Amino acid sequence: MNQNIENGKQNVASEPSLYLFPVPLSDGHLSNVLPEYNIRLIKDIRYFIVENVRSARRFLKKCCHDINIDGLTFFTLNRQTPVAEIPAMLQPMAQGHSIGVISEAGCPAIADPGADVVALAQKKHYNVVPLVGPSSILMSLMGSGFNGQSFAFNGYLPIEKSARAQKLRDLERRSMREDQTQIFIETPYRNNRLIADIIDTLSPQTLLCVASDITGASQSIKTLSVREWSKTNFNYDKTPAIFLICHA
Amino acid sequence: MNQNIENGKQNVASEPSLYLFPVPLSDGHLSNVLPEYNIRLIKDIRYFIVENVRSARRFLKKCCHDINIDGLTFFTLNRQTPVAEIPAMLQPMAQGHSIGVISEAGCPAIADPGADVVALAQKKHYNVVPLVGPSSILMSLMGSGFNGQSFAFNGYLPIEKSARAQKLRDLERRSMREDQTQIFIETPYRNNRLIADIIDTLSPQTLLCVASDITGASQSIKTLSVREWSKTNFNYDKTPAIFLICHA
Repeated sequence: MNQNIENGKQNVASEPSLYLFPVPLSDGHLSNVLPEYNIRLIKDIRYFIVENVRSARRFLKKCCHDINIDGLTFFTLNRQTPVAEIPAMLQPMAQGHSIGVISEAGCPAIADPGADVVALAQKKHYNVVPLVGPSSILMSLMGSGFNGQSFAFNGYLPIEKSARAQKLRDLERRSMREDQTQIFIETPYRNNRLIADIIDTLSPQTLLCVASDITGASQSIKTLSVREWSKTNFNYDKTPAIFLICHA
Repeated sequence: MNQNIENGKQNVASEPSLYLFPVPLSDGHLSNVLPEYNIRLIKDIRYFIVENVRSARRFLKKCCHDINIDGLTFFTLNRQTPVAEIPAMLQPMAQGHSIGVISEAGCPAIADPGADVVALAQKKHYNVVPLVGPSSILMSLMGSGFNGQSFAFNGYLPIEKSARAQKLRDLERRSMREDQTQIFIETPYRNNRLIADIIDTLSPQTLLCVASDITGASQSIKTLSVREWSKTNFNYDKTPAIFLICHA
């Protein structure tokens, strides 16, 4: 139980916890996208499991300018980390210390490493505490106007042309049959190609929302039919973007 | 484009926008779960589309103690609102005013009304700006240790016993075949019944996460196998909870 979320107290919960800290998706003040509570909490933590040490240090310095980074312990957890290395990362909890999990951007364990370490913490019955922060999945869904009572996030689509077209058609069919919004992402330099593939593959009536640079200076969330998209001069090249489809 | 999210400025974007304001899920300081930016922004807004006027007023007073509530205009949007009434709610935007959307708890348009008004705003090419805040769907997924690369939120399950068992089996099958975490909710007074149904219906190896009172004083996020759940004395009666399943 996390008793101290209840009020604005600065102390960390007495029971050691695995805190999941979201990280901003774009530049700008932390106070735009993170509750003050997260910043107060992170200052008392000495052990961190991070996707990338450099960006985690940068984030911590932004949270607390006078932080003593050299007094902190970092474990790296990314796609290359062998699963066998994860138990040692949770060792500090056995000694009564809380640990913070920090991914490169967005929410730890969502479309991100991190889930393995949370799963192990759950197995050991440790206290796990997710914190509030920006999620492009959730914010794009809110802004799309699509069904938020039923939705699925599907990660990346296949790259190979026919497999991708098949997957797009599957998602369109599911959005129609189940009235379930379908969400997916793409590597930024392939965004325009993906939109072109959607135009080539899906029904002209199907609605496509493209949300780009969420929380950033050039944020844009735009819902149009596939037919309307085909008539625009879209350009999302190298911009972080997320895609949602919904039946008309 | 929302130029002013970039920095900590207090002014509202020059272009009128439909701002989607998340609301806390539990009592406690706003600074625990909302970025300061949301509070600065909401103070400059005069028009609100709200799920419930009483709770919206309470939230606004919490954001700003000296707010002049009587100077604000509220439109009610809930499950009973006829779709034909929605266009008039967006009228202030045509006159250059921003509008705030506030649901009872959590994120507008996610498992909540609000999506219809966002859809209309998108049709009219208005600027839509979702803001950061607590989501029990996302936070429970982060804390579950389940796959966050692919997941689906399914809303409420059928109440009728055999339809519910069928739906549970469908979700378990999908979680297995597609490695997709399946998330659903229940009316709080039926939580214990739902867990009992899951124990009766799903494979003993399937993992079930129950997340209750997210961000509240008694927050608990617990992942166990269905077999392990069957041996615990669980009691989530009348506690807001969310349920996630994942293949073992």
